[in-house]
Amino acid sequence: MNKPTLYTCLSPALLHLYDVRDCIVVVIDILRATSTISTALYNGAKEIIPVDSVEKCIRLGKEMACITAGERDGKIAEGLQYGNSSFEYPREFIQGKILVLTTTNGTKLLHMALAKGATEIITGSFLNFSAVCQHLVEMKRNVILACAGWKDKVNMEDTLFAGAVVSEVEQHFNINCDSSGIASNLYQLAKDDMYEFMKKNDASHYHRLTKFGLEKDIRHCLTLDLANVLPYYMNERLVV
Amino acid sequence: MNKPTLYTCLSPALLHLYDVRDCIVVVIDILRATSTISTALYNGAKEIIPVDSVEKCIRLGKEMACITAGERDGKIAEGLQYGNSSFEYPREFIQGKILVLTTTNGTKLLHMALAKGATEIITGSFLNFSAVCQHLVEMKRNVILACAGWKDKVNMEDTLFAGAVVSEVEQHFNINCDSSGIASNLYQLAKDDMYEFMKKNDASHYHRLTKFGLEKDIRHCLTLDLANVLPYYMNERLVV
Repeated sequence: MNKPTLYTCLSPALLHLYDVRDCIVVVIDILRATSTISTALYNGAKEIIPVDSVEKCIRLGKEMACITAGERDGKIAEGLQYGNSSFEYPREFIQGKILVLTTTNGTKLLHMALAKGATEIITGSFLNFSAVCQHLVEMKRNVILACAGWKDKVNMEDTLFAGAVVSEVEQHFNINCDSSGIASNLYQLAKDDMYEFMKKNDASHYHRLTKFGLEKDIRHCLTLDLANVLPYYMNERLVV
Repeated sequence: MNKPTLYTCLSPALLHLYDVRDCIVVVIDILRATSTISTALYNGAKEIIPVDSVEKCIRLGKEMACITAGERDGKIAEGLQYGNSSFEYPREFIQGKILVLTTTNGTKLLHMALAKGATEIITGSFLNFSAVCQHLVEMKRNVILACAGWKDKVNMEDTLFAGAVVSEVEQHFNINCDSSGIASNLYQLAKDDMYEFMKKNDASHYHRLTKFGLEKDIRHCLTLDLANVLPYYMNERLVV
């Protein structure tokens, strides 16, 4: 059985342990970068330009007259127009527009994967879960599920998403990776009510976002297939 | 409630994210360094000198006329006398002797914690589970559960042990750490039969060691309190 391999990388600080070249890298930042990316593209955004600094975001926004968005530490970064919530990007606002986005963890990880030679990058969230799984199964290529975490610490929700993907696609891959096993077992425990699971375990990001009144955001980001597109990175942009 | 904090660090490559000074660092390398350390000290070894290279192990062995032991990639390292199995260190052999030990992951992590300024280091294994938990509760100090993993990758058994400790002591600590939550949930799933859990999930180390015929070692290392001592690091040695 010559199946492709699948690995889960639980933190950007572990990415150097995996060979990201010649495989599909799934960038995962559930709360909230990759959820927002799914939503904006699903709602008709022309493209999303992920950048790794607030300064670059502001500069591109001026040069290209596009929407600038992003957060640092969960809040809209100074100098940017919008934040990192799916609810800021309904169709009537975002359709046909270009969004330049920078976030604490997700967009940084994407650039890290690029710097390490990744050639195929897609973004994964519960909102586009089925599109991601279907793509991975169809492509029959090696896969790295790359969790953004929080400032290099492992987090609950990105691990849960990796576990959901592992649970869904495992029969198509050769998985010799304890992180994948840990993630899929965690997902099996949590899947009936991920919001309650996050709450019960006082997940750090649950804690952080509810302090900002963002319970609705969390519930949204934990819902399957609400924005079921496949964002992929090409020519410095995320498109579908 | 001014409880001390507890964090779980799932890989040595994440240790820089935690402040190891002024706290108790529990070095965890279930298969098999910290299990062997518990066993040898329980069986009366005078002290264990953990070293980070095979060369240093050989040199100290000659200088001090003591037992040299260690492995690289799961096998006895060339030039050393003994390996990394509890069964090599029964009382009749090890009592009163000094053991110089080097392993792929566990002893390396210990030296990394020292280099980062750790002042109190103990070693944890299922074999000395209760001694570790009792110490942590009594000391009322901040704690880092430091998993050795496998060549910086997160592994199943070290995560399970961290989860067991978290489950046991959590009411005594302020735990704002997703890795701890992930570990304790995993342990709850696995605790009724950790060996079967490791087997069912084809944990990488289960796979690696069973290839060497070491099922008995794995079962031993997953058993609670068979060598219930508290190894602590002092003057470059592990003693009880």
